[in-house]
Amino acid sequence: MQKNYRPNFVYQDFASSFTAEFFDPEEWATIFEASGARYVVLTSKHHEGYTLWPSRYSWNWNSMDVGPNRDLVGDLAQAIRSTTPSIHFGLYHSLLEWFHPLYLEDKANNFYSNKFVVSKSMPELYELVNTYQPEVVWSDGEWESPDWYWNSTVFLAWLFNDSPVKDTVVANDRWGVGVPCNHGSFYTCSDRYNPGVLQPHKWENAMTLDWASWGYRRNAGYYDYVPIDYLITTLAETISCGGNLLINVGPTHDGRIPAIMEERLRQLGSWLDINGEAVYDTTPWQHQNDTVTPGVWYTAREDLVYAIVLAWPRTNELTLGSVVSSPTTSVTMLGYNQDPPALQFHSYQESGIVVTFPPMYEVTSQWAWVLTMSGIDATQ
Amino acid sequence: MQKNYRPNFVYQDFASSFTAEFFDPEEWATIFEASGARYVVLTSKHHEGYTLWPSRYSWNWNSMDVGPNRDLVGDLAQAIRSTTPSIHFGLYHSLLEWFHPLYLEDKANNFYSNKFVVSKSMPELYELVNTYQPEVVWSDGEWESPDWYWNSTVFLAWLFNDSPVKDTVVANDRWGVGVPCNHGSFYTCSDRYNPGVLQPHKWENAMTLDWASWGYRRNAGYYDYVPIDYLITTLAETISCGGNLLINVGPTHDGRIPAIMEERLRQLGSWLDINGEAVYDTTPWQHQNDTVTPGVWYTAREDLVYAIVLAWPRTNELTLGSVVSSPTTSVTMLGYNQDPPALQFHSYQESGIVVTFPPMYEVTSQWAWVLTMSGIDATQ
Amino acid sequence: MQKNYRPNFVYQDFASSFTAEFFDPEEWATIFEASGARYVVLTSKHHEGYTLWPSRYSWNWNSMDVGPNRDLVGDLAQAIRSTTPSIHFGLYHSLLEWFHPLYLEDKANNFYSNKFVVSKSMPELYELVNTYQPEVVWSDGEWESPDWYWNSTVFLAWLFNDSPVKDTVVANDRWGVGVPCNHGSFYTCSDRYNPGVLQPHKWENAMTLDWASWGYRRNAGYYDYVPIDYLITTLAETISCGGNLLINVGPTHDGRIPAIMEERLRQLGSWLDINGEAVYDTTPWQHQNDTVTPGVWYTAREDLVYAIVLAWPRTNELTLGSVVSSPTTSVTMLGYNQDPPALQFHSYQESGIVVTFPPMYEVTSQWAWVLTMSGIDATQ
Amino acid sequence: MQKNYRPNFVYQDFASSFTAEFFDPEEWATIFEASGARYVVLTSKHHEGYTLWPSRYSWNWNSMDVGPNRDLVGDLAQAIRSTTPSIHFGLYHSLLEWFHPLYLEDKANNFYSNKFVVSKSMPELYELVNTYQPEVVWSDGEWESPDWYWNSTVFLAWLFNDSPVKDTVVANDRWGVGVPCNHGSFYTCSDRYNPGVLQPHKWENAMTLDWASWGYRRNAGYYDYVPIDYLITTLAETISCGGNLLINVGPTHDGRIPAIMEERLRQLGSWLDINGEAVYDTTPWQHQNDTVTPGVWYTAREDLVYAIVLAWPRTNELTLGSVVSSPTTSVTMLGYNQDPPALQFHSYQESGIVVTFPPMYEVTSQWAWVLTMSGIDATQ
Repeated sequence: MQKNYRPNFVYQDFASSFTAEFFDPEEWATIFEASGARYVVLTSKHHEGYTLWPSRYSWNWNSMDVGPNRDLVGDLAQAIRSTTPSIHFGLYHSLLEWFHPLYLEDKANNFYSNKFVVSKSMPELYELVNTYQPEVVWSDGEWESPDWYWNSTVFLAWLFNDSPVKDTVVANDRWGVGVPCNHGSFYTCSDRYNPGVLQPHKWENAMTLDWASWGYRRNAGYYDYVPIDYLITTLAETISCGGNLLINVGPTHDGRIPAIMEERLRQLGSWLDINGEAVYDTTPWQHQNDTVTPGVWYTAREDLVYAIVLAWPRTNELTLGSVVSSPTTSVTMLGYNQDPPALQFHSYQESGIVVTFPPMYEVTSQWAWVLTMSGIDATQ
Repeated sequence: MQKNYRPNFVYQDFASSFTAEFFDPEEWATIFEASGARYVVLTSKHHEGYTLWPSRYSWNWNSMDVGPNRDLVGDLAQAIRSTTPSIHFGLYHSLLEWFHPLYLEDKANNFYSNKFVVSKSMPELYELVNTYQPEVVWSDGEWESPDWYWNSTVFLAWLFNDSPVKDTVVANDRWGVGVPCNHGSFYTCSDRYNPGVLQPHKWENAMTLDWASWGYRRNAGYYDYVPIDYLITTLAETISCGGNLLINVGPTHDGRIPAIMEERLRQLGSWLDINGEAVYDTTPWQHQNDTVTPGVWYTAREDLVYAIVLAWPRTNELTLGSVVSSPTTSVTMLGYNQDPPALQFHSYQESGIVVTFPPMYEVTSQWAWVLTMSGIDATQ
Repeated sequence: MQKNYRPNFVYQDFASSFTAEFFDPEEWATIFEASGARYVVLTSKHHEGYTLWPSRYSWNWNSMDVGPNRDLVGDLAQAIRSTTPSIHFGLYHSLLEWFHPLYLEDKANNFYSNKFVVSKSMPELYELVNTYQPEVVWSDGEWESPDWYWNSTVFLAWLFNDSPVKDTVVANDRWGVGVPCNHGSFYTCSDRYNPGVLQPHKWENAMTLDWASWGYRRNAGYYDYVPIDYLITTLAETISCGGNLLINVGPTHDGRIPAIMEERLRQLGSWLDINGEAVYDTTPWQHQNDTVTPGVWYTAREDLVYAIVLAWPRTNELTLGSVVSSPTTSVTMLGYNQDPPALQFHSYQESGIVVTFPPMYEVTSQWAWVLTMSGIDATQ
Repeated sequence: MQKNYRPNFVYQDFASSFTAEFFDPEEWATIFEASGARYVVLTSKHHEGYTLWPSRYSWNWNSMDVGPNRDLVGDLAQAIRSTTPSIHFGLYHSLLEWFHPLYLEDKANNFYSNKFVVSKSMPELYELVNTYQPEVVWSDGEWESPDWYWNSTVFLAWLFNDSPVKDTVVANDRWGVGVPCNHGSFYTCSDRYNPGVLQPHKWENAMTLDWASWGYRRNAGYYDYVPIDYLITTLAETISCGGNLLINVGPTHDGRIPAIMEERLRQLGSWLDINGEAVYDTTPWQHQNDTVTPGVWYTAREDLVYAIVLAWPRTNELTLGSVVSSPTTSVTMLGYNQDPPALQFHSYQESGIVVTFPPMYEVTSQWAWVLTMSGIDATQ
């Protein structure tokens, strides 16, 4: 800011250049659907307190009063619900606000006063749920104070028992010191949480397309964005261990999703068009990743087991140490529809199989490949 | 705005161009003192709610967070108190805010809810008094709702009994529907209130240098500002009837008092340098204006009577119908210090005198002249 | 600029905020006429090269292309000619341009190249005269190079012999090193030239209302502007010695003449309404200022002599050492129209008179007073 | 502009927001080299006349005076020459300027006057060549007037005989009506010129990464950019017919090459890393594209023939109708380095061969594949 703006230019001065003139919520919805997403979470307010909806409790520091002069939350909710009804609409909300004077006052009081909670964060959160009826409430910014300061329990009781979304809503776990990873519809235990092993409770891996930032950086170049291989790898790791993947995009001041981000989302969607069967509505399997070959992650649905293979095997033959075949075992590959589609395989040592991959040029999937296996011996 | 700003430009977008880079509170204090002012009232917040101090209750809509990045109230208070300690420092504060969503919500509830008062107007007013310790609290914006909505009585009880300024403060009368002109340290019964007759209670005439506006208008020209004669006339009318005069100046976006306004203030001050004896610490007399000659207004101090004469008499002789002389009567003119300074006079009909004015070129006062009279027969 | 603008903000960046949205040329014409002006000279281009008209030779650095998007020269010319036809319209033009790369190149060549003159300054000056037909061409910026560099002689030959204004135009004297004060319709020998003694050639005193600046300064206060007394004094000094007075006003970025400047112009005009007879179409007299009383300046018309008296005499009697009365001498005062208007006077020593001033309150003039004298003995 | 900017906002007002604060010429050079480019052509001035260098003939309408305050041409020239010396540096320059008043004046005179050429376009072009010494002069904007108006012949005589780049420079063909496609070091016969058949003279295909625009469009999304397959296809078509490919990127107002464009350039470079042998320093072959299989384009170097195959053959076998084998014929694939690398082939009818492709997973090239063939019977 010192290098590019006038002296005394402050964060707040950015608001009037947050114009969002190209924000097209229907186009966003279309891109999200093309990415294969089944739910979307909009950051309705981050730690700096600017609300993307006309909050009665954040007067002149919201997107209707300053900047876009639009209800960005409402416009996206409406677009998602009318354009892409298969996507669930959720909202992120930060409890704390870095610079709010009432929060700072409460904090200086060791949180034995609660002016901020009473006049700002809780009224705002109720307003948000009542107005936009999100199906995901993604709380954040809880880490400096206990849940009794935030009044979280009362809010959550209302959310699940009395709110207009009580029958459909899920909430994450960031509601006070000590709460994350302990209570919540799903857990978001840390930043970019990706444990790599099966978790006993539903969890989410929230990551971002820019390696270094959750917000848009004008000066980010090609290498600052994760490649599609990384995205698919992360997706495989996440779902194999029982998690959901939440992929962040940082839009621009004028309301666009940059083309490079749109490309990543559409690449992922094109992969899911072929391989989504191994992702949607699947559960973790008894193994998460293969014991012999690295880069192979499993999911399951009823008696089917899916192996997501991140690298084409060097010799065209893939060894799966975690799969025990039976006389009825059959192996096919998603995106390989030749006749017959069944792949050759043979046993490997005592408890594995070796699968011969088809000619690569006859396979439609890129970047990663999914083997669908039925008749697996699940006793071992 | 449609003619000169981009589409969708709103009032709030002005905030970042309110820069106040030339605001020099010591210079303001110097100008106020040069004008002869004995108290100054700064508009700390007007009906649009932007506070000129870093209010904890108006986050990001105040002069510290957006625009000047300064505590304008604090800076002026400090300058007045250190540079011109003879001037009392006061603060104007609007109870209502035209656009505040909580106020609008309360209003829609016919004021049977009080979210706005509880979370905004009252906390702010307490903060203002506690922080800046004004000697005048000049309330406004009361007119849509009763005092029980505003919680005025509790505030005023605190102000006069427990606040840090309880021993010195005065407050005006705008604290709820029906209160103005009925309760208050002084009355401000209407806009530019100037009753023209003696009032039983202390009152104030608040007027402005721009005929048409309380704020600065960039496109105001010479004829849009009141001339000095008008200012002196208004001062004479006001104090003769027991009022104080509060003269508004509308500063610019960059923090200046325009030269034309500074000139008016300094002109008034130069007149008061000569004639202030008839103004400061005087009381109304038994007559307010003369019964025979228009444009003559009276004040008094102990046994002296002052006649403020707004126009030099055409024949050089002034008839005062309200003044009855006695054998000890003596008449002099402020700013006429020849030897002897006593002016000739003779009786006029049964109950008046005719005063012969001195040669005009020997008189230092401009625009209006004050006769000082002692030994007047006060029984009539 | 470092204090208030972004890093690398340069002079050129100001152009887009030179908006002139309040520029009302008819209003300007009205103010100029009210000031008593008989000619107006607009700065069509100053040393930084920005032209106030759409010059073909200053593309994208003129008021049509950048900033106001108006032909400011054309609009004012039109307004003056239609609204106030008694005012002559003139144009100031700077030959040099501080930063123009071709000028700097010529200068580095000791002016033995003339790229700038050929492609910029001369084409522009011809364009200006042909398009707007000014009756005054006020040249400036000549001081670094000789007239043969500027090609002035050819231009002036054209101006007075062939141009569309050849029969009416006058030009000043700044056309090359050594030319000022030597050649020209009138001389402008130096900045704020005011010699104080009679000059053999017509000259002009160009001064400005802001003591310290020819351009508008946002942070100029009341004391930065010359008082009306100073203006009238300067006018009296100037015309008594054969000069014209050119009073500069620096307008604002939004196209206004600030109220304090308008006031000065209107004050001068109100004085000229009463006393203009001693100014317009007069000539210097045989004495310029009085030999005995300071602050008295003379003008003449046919057999009338005017004494402009800058201060009312302390004793009400004015001694004029330069005036010799004859039996037919009569003295009156402009703005004193009592019956009879003739003032008493008597001889003073061998060659002077003492005039008794009328009662001041019967005189309409302010700030300075003019005695009109007929029947003066002009032989001495 | 009407929708998003203030009334009367004009093109010129954009200049001050052309900030280029992120312009890093070394990074650009690195990207260009990574793309495989062997020459770079910067648009030094387009039809609106704004020069990216501090032209003496475009004062205050260039990147040094307004906007970036940098010599963008000089900075990039320096970066290319020091960072990536294998890349030749060239400059685009528009002869005409849409809005220049002198050009419009000449045009209104049917080009029988030449004020614009004499004072603007030619001085500027000489300045450009002398200062930055480009190895490519890419002229444009010639189409409204003949070469004798532009004075092109004199300029080109100087360029090739006397200029500082006379021994290395090449120039295109846009120098006057009727000149394109007839004279020039290389021909650029039309917009996105891509004839599809062998040309007798060196030519260039100038195309752009955004389907619809040569400049950056903020609101361009993923589908607005050409895919990498299209880029490689166009490259193959172009070089097979004797052309060079010039790929346009439109940078942003803050000086960046958007990540999606950088990706396309790097993708192309990664393909060229493997397959560049078929591109650099090759010549057209006797056939340009195959007679039997569409999407196969040929180049040659000495006795080697390269077939650029845009699609992997469906059956893994590729028929080349234009290639006649001999007993010494050998076929390999770039990026296929197994042992032995030679591919199986057999004759096809009378004058062709059928090549068996290797296992795809052993091939490193993506998007397109190159067969290198030696010992071809070139008599047919």
